Amino acid sequence: MIDVTATLARYVVSASADSVPGNVRREAVRSFLNWTGCAVGGSQHASVDIALAAVSPFAGRDQASILGRGERLDALNAALLNGIASHVFDFDDTHLRTIIHPAGPVASAILSLAQLRPVSGRDLLHAFILGVEVECRIGNAVYPAHYDIGWHITGTAGVFGAAAAAGRLLGLTEQQMIWALGIAGTQSSGFREMFGTMCKSFHPGRAAQNGLLSAFMAQRDFTSSNRVLEAPRGFAHVMSTERNFDEITKGLGESFEIALNTYKPFACGIVIHPIIDGCVQLRNEFGLTAAQIEGIELEVDPLVLELTGKKTPTVGLEGKFSVYHSAAVAIIEGRAGEEEYSDASVRDPEVIALRDRVSAAASQSVAEDECHVTIRLKDGRVLRKHVEHAIGSLARPMTDDDLNAKFGGLAEPVLGATATARLRDLCWEIETLEDAAAIARAATPVG
Amino acid sequence: MIDVTATLARYVVSASADSVPGNVRREAVRSFLNWTGCAVGGSQHASVDIALAAVSPFAGRDQASILGRGERLDALNAALLNGIASHVFDFDDTHLRTIIHPAGPVASAILSLAQLRPVSGRDLLHAFILGVEVECRIGNAVYPAHYDIGWHITGTAGVFGAAAAAGRLLGLTEQQMIWALGIAGTQSSGFREMFGTMCKSFHPGRAAQNGLLSAFMAQRDFTSSNRVLEAPRGFAHVMSTERNFDEITKGLGESFEIALNTYKPFACGIVIHPIIDGCVQLRNEFGLTAAQIEGIELEVDPLVLELTGKKTPTVGLEGKFSVYHSAAVAIIEGRAGEEEYSDASVRDPEVIALRDRVSAAASQSVAEDECHVTIRLKDGRVLRKHVEHAIGSLARPMTDDDLNAKFGGLAEPVLGATATARLRDLCWEIETLEDAAAIARAATPVG
Repeated sequence: MIDVTATLARYVVSASADSVPGNVRREAVRSFLNWTGCAVGGSQHASVDIALAAVSPFAGRDQASILGRGERLDALNAALLNGIASHVFDFDDTHLRTIIHPAGPVASAILSLAQLRPVSGRDLLHAFILGVEVECRIGNAVYPAHYDIGWHITGTAGVFGAAAAAGRLLGLTEQQMIWALGIAGTQSSGFREMFGTMCKSFHPGRAAQNGLLSAFMAQRDFTSSNRVLEAPRGFAHVMSTERNFDEITKGLGESFEIALNTYKPFACGIVIHPIIDGCVQLRNEFGLTAAQIEGIELEVDPLVLELTGKKTPTVGLEGKFSVYHSAAVAIIEGRAGEEEYSDASVRDPEVIALRDRVSAAASQSVAEDECHVTIRLKDGRVLRKHVEHAIGSLARPMTDDDLNAKFGGLAEPVLGATATARLRDLCWEIETLEDAAAIARAATPVG
Repeated sequence: MIDVTATLARYVVSASADSVPGNVRREAVRSFLNWTGCAVGGSQHASVDIALAAVSPFAGRDQASILGRGERLDALNAALLNGIASHVFDFDDTHLRTIIHPAGPVASAILSLAQLRPVSGRDLLHAFILGVEVECRIGNAVYPAHYDIGWHITGTAGVFGAAAAAGRLLGLTEQQMIWALGIAGTQSSGFREMFGTMCKSFHPGRAAQNGLLSAFMAQRDFTSSNRVLEAPRGFAHVMSTERNFDEITKGLGESFEIALNTYKPFACGIVIHPIIDGCVQLRNEFGLTAAQIEGIELEVDPLVLELTGKKTPTVGLEGKFSVYHSAAVAIIEGRAGEEEYSDASVRDPEVIALRDRVSAAASQSVAEDECHVTIRLKDGRVLRKHVEHAIGSLARPMTDDDLNAKFGGLAEPVLGATATARLRDLCWEIETLEDAAAIARAATPVG
């Protein structure tokens, strides 16, 4: 059998930035911008406050920024905090085939690294592309069996991506890159059981931090197995019931997983997106209010109920995993941004009253980005909407304008309009930056 | 079904030190002493040097000692380094039923904590007993299925023990203890694939550090699932194919797993111990030299070949997982201490020549602590030894004198005879210490 880990490592250390197609680089820029907005927007969340308070007494020197905040930490802890912040709204990017949120683990690791040593924006972006490639290919090799067991794949695969991207920037040799993947893989962890709690965003944070540490250890020749991915007691056998190593080794440098990345218009689990989309469309077309509605019936992909079947969420983080809450706020507010997933929103009596009138049925014939919404009104009318592809899916991607608007909505409350515009521009221009750390500096609030 | 995680958490926060029987406390003292010796002895290993160099640029304030060394780090990184050092010789304690090395994750975490805030020796020892209880009970619930999949159980279960012991010393509430176990569990990781590489000792180090961080995060109300152990997507289902939750919840406070702890006379995998024991006995009885020997035939438990079947180890760490190398050094040197697992030893032509004349056959009728050794001499004689229970097993435990001699052999080369004797005495007297951190101070070399 082919040496899977070595093949992947060889690609990461030898890949040329020049050979990456323009459309791939463009999608990488969009991914990085979306990640930056999410990190700044999430930076004030209680999960970040608590994690920061917990690690601060032990953190090292003033090396790297927590985007959106004034505090600076050592590079490893900054990677943890940015990873948490960028995922805490569940508003970051999605690799639809694996449901990996690719940017968090990788970007959090390498933006920290860029503050330790000068890295050009172009090199940072290329390392980002390679890190996403590594985590998504590993995800492709084991999804869905790995996810079905109960692993939170953003954490479990993300740690490899973080190690690969950081190792690339550190200039690791092929052997060192193999070790970096090995040290990362033997830390691969994170249960789906944690969804709806603060630990969900802890997973990409820890993946970023652990992957970054793996690269630093490998740089000093800390050894691991050379076969962490393919060995009988390695990642793909221990953590999955099925695996296809061709997904990791075939076509390296020819296809790029980041080209398949997507961005959420709504601050919740990706599988709820078609439902919110359909409800908002009906609301706007018919000027609906909650009071008019007798009941809402949803026909959805089975994964929707498996992942987001929480009937009575009690905190905002749980609301992100409730298709019922999401349909209710979509009708009442006409949107599903972070505010609609606050603790106050899930406890709002009007929202609860409508939520309790939402029912959902799973159907094998409905795709993941599709749904049928039926709204029965008290006046006897029945309104229907078939969403074939939700907004934010590959078939209906967010435009650059959509991404800019989302970025503004996330960053402006934290940084103000002027600094937000400047940060956004820096993200779009990342490939021209001599010093990628300029993005971290621009994401720090003034005063 | 009973709330497994909550039941365990309730026990840990409410258990009384007064109710722990004297023999249990005594075994805990022996375990702690053995751990301290291993940590000091392992502190000069290249794995520790590299890990220290890798984390130092990011480490926080001068809070806690690395036993046996002059450097001090923040408490979390000190826990990592002590966890690595204490396991790097594979000479630490063994809970035979699960092959967990219980002390490393727990002691490394709480001795760091004791340097942040005053903790009496009695409280430290009680927290140590509770942490070992937690990790070994969780191990009992999933062993052997969990281990057979490929998980390094010292890391995967150890992180719970570290969190529990640290959380106990922090005075967590029951809910916070549930969260500490949840945050710890969602970091549970470590592949057996890493055996023979530096990552093996990284596992207990990281378990200590991650468990300690989990307790600090839970103290500030960072939330997790309340059911990390028993939920369908929690630890016991995701990371094992079989499980028995009664092992976790029955008889809490009545039986103590640490009473079943054992200590190795030889610096290698526990399953090789009967073979070394038998070879050393025959060597001494007959005054054997390698030159006399035609061949050595071993009849062993099947696990011996599965775990330690490396025919041609090339570095010392691999030698610890080679029953062939171990039998050879047992004949040539009459012992199997750390020196016999140096890189030089596994590359010694005399050792290699004898190693190549060792054969081993697995037999279902041979127990884990048993073996049959047959040595054929060039003069035609055939010598046999049946080891029913290896030295260091529960049936033939190390005496206090044995432990003192082992402690001296490990610590004296690092600390010198006087400081070693003082440190050893402090360990024996741990229950009388007003400040348990005195042990960490005494383990620091002078000058």
